[in-house]
Amino acid sequence: MKLGRIVGTVVSTRKDEKIESLKLYVVRDLSLSITEKDSFVVAVDSVGSGLGEVVLYSSGSAARQTNMTDGRPVDAVVMAIVDQMDVHGELVYNKATDTGEPGRPAEE
Amino acid sequence: MKLGRIVGTVVSTRKDEKIESLKLYVVRDLSLSITEKDSFVVAVDSVGSGLGEVVLYSSGSAARQTNMTDGRPVDAVVMAIVDQMDVHGELVYNKATDTGEPGRPAEE
Amino acid sequence: MKLGRIVGTVVSTRKDEKIESLKLYVVRDLSLSITEKDSFVVAVDSVGSGLGEVVLYSSGSAARQTNMTDGRPVDAVVMAIVDQMDVHGELVYNKATDTGEPGRPAEE
Amino acid sequence: MKLGRIVGTVVSTRKDEKIESLKLYVVRDLSLSITEKDSFVVAVDSVGSGLGEVVLYSSGSAARQTNMTDGRPVDAVVMAIVDQMDVHGELVYNKATDTGEPGRPAEE
Amino acid sequence: MKLGRIVGTVVSTRKDEKIESLKLYVVRDLSLSITEKDSFVVAVDSVGSGLGEVVLYSSGSAARQTNMTDGRPVDAVVMAIVDQMDVHGELVYNKATDTGEPGRPAEE
Repeated sequence: MKLGRIVGTVVSTRKDEKIESLKLYVVRDLSLSITEKDSFVVAVDSVGSGLGEVVLYSSGSAARQTNMTDGRPVDAVVMAIVDQMDVHGELVYNKATDTGEPGRPAEE
Repeated sequence: MKLGRIVGTVVSTRKDEKIESLKLYVVRDLSLSITEKDSFVVAVDSVGSGLGEVVLYSSGSAARQTNMTDGRPVDAVVMAIVDQMDVHGELVYNKATDTGEPGRPAEE
Repeated sequence: MKLGRIVGTVVSTRKDEKIESLKLYVVRDLSLSITEKDSFVVAVDSVGSGLGEVVLYSSGSAARQTNMTDGRPVDAVVMAIVDQMDVHGELVYNKATDTGEPGRPAEE
Repeated sequence: MKLGRIVGTVVSTRKDEKIESLKLYVVRDLSLSITEKDSFVVAVDSVGSGLGEVVLYSSGSAARQTNMTDGRPVDAVVMAIVDQMDVHGELVYNKATDTGEPGRPAEE
Repeated sequence: MKLGRIVGTVVSTRKDEKIESLKLYVVRDLSLSITEKDSFVVAVDSVGSGLGEVVLYSSGSAARQTNMTDGRPVDAVVMAIVDQMDVHGELVYNKATDTGEPGRPAEE
């Protein structure tokens, strides 16, 4: 899985019928120090996540293993909202105190 | 899914029989600020998209989950036309006012 | 799918029994201006393509969706020979006038 | 498979029901000289590995081939703990004498 | 498929039961001029290949299409030993005269 922050949404009226009603988020990849990278994906939400949240998303065929995405042309799915992450013994992310990326207020 | 702009077409007379009649588009990857990147794929259209449009495409086995691509040797499919996209609270793309990439008129 | 030029061949006598008799091509990735990039794959031919030709190849599980590659340990297949490609309204490739990469005669 | 070191953990209370109870590790990619690279994944543990250990992880659909991950939206799984690795005839890694990355004590 | 040279081995006693008894090689990616790149994978051998040999390996779900890897959490498999490779009409690799990478004797 990859670590990302939900930074936006995509609106589409003309799309494959199998993805009707699915929520499409812009998810920007995060570094281990929780800074946004240039790379991003558009992912379907399967856990009721919201703008500004730090999440995990699965890519490839794994993205079709949720009840919401089974059998659909979806290659990325948000499947977990991150509460805490620690690296080398340090708490690098804590949802409770998250204010969004440095210099940018959280969107939610 | 990835964000791209349809910038061209590929014509092929000799191809695997399973992709006969499928439309092949050149789709260039877009950054979050909707500028074209160097990377691109050739993708099958499943939603009646057209030249110049900003779209989402799915890669890998997800690309075979549309009625049009099921069971075919296709690893990328355009499965949504983007109307609007917003990032960090700003509208970064609006189909209604899209004139193509800066310095380049929309092809359609 | 990705755009590539067939630039070479691989000969292997000791290989998985399921790929016996399959033709193995060296396919170099092409940019939108049809210049060869450093990256390349070794792909199975499913359309009778030949050295020097510009082709499309599929990667991943899509590569097993041709009659020739079904159920085999193959992750890249040439599935179309490109006749023409146009980008931003310009004809960037025309098989009829293709002489191979600049400075290098076509191999065929 | 890729070579990585388990450097952290992810805690998530809101996640897809199919990944409840799975342990989520932050795994940082390693070079051939066993130094940590910038890239990382979040992977499910299937072998009882622990913080600081050098492991192999599988990506893509392979990540669902363990009893622990079958049918779940998981695209990376730790499936082996590395005891020794040698490259060009030299022992580049030995678990028995591993003290973690240079300048950083092992976390375990 | 990708072109690589087998440069090392991985020893693991604690691993997923489905990969018990499989041989794990360190395979370094090769350029078209048969020089080793920084990138590498750990791959299962399915053709009796040995240290120092130039091989092809398949990634992703293709890696499970050999009798040896079917249904296992394996995302890379060596499925051919390369005898010869030619690019742009030149013989860039010949197993018969291969002495390993420049400046490094073949390991076998």
